[in-house]
Amino acid sequence: MKLDFDCVVVGAGIAGMTAAIYLKRSNLNVLILDNDAPGGLLNKISVVENYPGFTSISGPDLAYKIYEQVNNLGIEIRYGKVLSIKNHQVITDLETITTNKIILAIGRKARKLDNTNNLKNVSYCALCDANLYKDKIVAIVGYSNSALEEALYLSDICRKVIIIGRGTNFKGEDSLISKVKNKDNIDINLDCNIKSLESDNNILNKIITDKGEFIVDGMFVAIGYEPNTDFLDNIVKDNGYIIVDDKMKTNIDYIFACGDIIKKDVYQLTTAVGEATIAAINVKKEIK
Amino acid sequence: MKLDFDCVVVGAGIAGMTAAIYLKRSNLNVLILDNDAPGGLLNKISVVENYPGFTSISGPDLAYKIYEQVNNLGIEIRYGKVLSIKNHQVITDLETITTNKIILAIGRKARKLDNTNNLKNVSYCALCDANLYKDKIVAIVGYSNSALEEALYLSDICRKVIIIGRGTNFKGEDSLISKVKNKDNIDINLDCNIKSLESDNNILNKIITDKGEFIVDGMFVAIGYEPNTDFLDNIVKDNGYIIVDDKMKTNIDYIFACGDIIKKDVYQLTTAVGEATIAAINVKKEIK
Repeated sequence: MKLDFDCVVVGAGIAGMTAAIYLKRSNLNVLILDNDAPGGLLNKISVVENYPGFTSISGPDLAYKIYEQVNNLGIEIRYGKVLSIKNHQVITDLETITTNKIILAIGRKARKLDNTNNLKNVSYCALCDANLYKDKIVAIVGYSNSALEEALYLSDICRKVIIIGRGTNFKGEDSLISKVKNKDNIDINLDCNIKSLESDNNILNKIITDKGEFIVDGMFVAIGYEPNTDFLDNIVKDNGYIIVDDKMKTNIDYIFACGDIIKKDVYQLTTAVGEATIAAINVKKEIK
Repeated sequence: MKLDFDCVVVGAGIAGMTAAIYLKRSNLNVLILDNDAPGGLLNKISVVENYPGFTSISGPDLAYKIYEQVNNLGIEIRYGKVLSIKNHQVITDLETITTNKIILAIGRKARKLDNTNNLKNVSYCALCDANLYKDKIVAIVGYSNSALEEALYLSDICRKVIIIGRGTNFKGEDSLISKVKNKDNIDINLDCNIKSLESDNNILNKIITDKGEFIVDGMFVAIGYEPNTDFLDNIVKDNGYIIVDDKMKTNIDYIFACGDIIKKDVYQLTTAVGEATIAAINVKKEIK
């Protein structure tokens, strides 16, 4: 049976587009599938200052530059929500596509805090945006490992970091917890629930909780990310994150994965493009 | 004892500059050391078309953009050739610097062709030297990706480009191979071994191979790369490439490494920036 494609890349974020660029340049017949605009999580990031090559660029602008690169190579992008994958078939809400290999680059989404959609100084990534709040006062909402990590990171850059966590105890590594407790400029508020947010011209300035009010210059939210891999029922995962080997291969012989959807330590643009390259090069090696 | 720096990054190529960007943004006191201009191997690459964000950019232009980013963060770069590293001291030809952590991002250098040391018209960088051979006849020795890239670049400047490769097939991206094959002024000689070089007054003029003799005005060489890690006598290596774990840490507790100098499968700009990020984030975690 002739297959429709050598490789289908699911996800048009930076990882998926990078994988497709490498695949196409190695002369493979590649398709990118997504059910949203190209760019993925980049489209939700206000400023990117840690991607080498751009001193400062908006997430959507960077996404568009990579999209242009994809376009320039004549890579096909189709709209489609993937419902399931089996036997080299990708079944979307619109069609069934056959392919030799698949690279999953479906990313993940930050879990949103209610009622923050219109606020300009609410961030979901301390590593990305902490520099905007140098010597200022910020809140970090959350009480898990990622909130602790974000709080520590922010505490070296911001004047004061106010942790607001719903849990009665931190839910994270002891070493992180003790580091946070030892920081003079971190104010810990646990068992603390947000009642309302006050803002002026879409700039958040006060967080009202059941433990008091906090005046802030910005708010970071780290209440987790959500991978959405429920539709991948045969793939080995850890809390929804796909397990890959050092070739970015999953437990299923023809399926690779890269970017934010895989289980790993560092979730950055730079690591996503690295993994995408490794996935694409290994797909090419196997097809040859 | 107060140390001079939290982290010294040795090497100002894309890996070193990326690591420094992450370190500085996490508020560490970082120094980049190099004995050459910032950019590393990028400065010798004519066209980059597989780095996400740039459809097509010259290597030096990309290097300069990252250098601007480094500069914009106020990261210090010092000139210095590292002679040895011991006990948290980096000893250069000019000074001794103390540091908590070290990231080695020293890259690698083009492998030299035997018996060419005295020849004045042998080059390892088409981008640097192609203009010297405008409308002339040059050979390019090699059959991998970099040889293909150099051949293409030379073919737009030189009258004729003679590829001399030992391999029976090209070992590179299909898109590059087909571009090379479509060029009228590129003469491809594979499975072809150099027997001797004839020169007059240290000017190479004839290349004698087992497939015939080639009269040339100059010769470019792209036969791979070599790590130069002899000065790192306590670090575990494999054929000169530094062994790192998944945190980019070497066998020495305070020394990390990333980019082209480490032992790995995929040597690309994308993988270098990913590794540099992982190294920097783990340095930061250990310092705090």
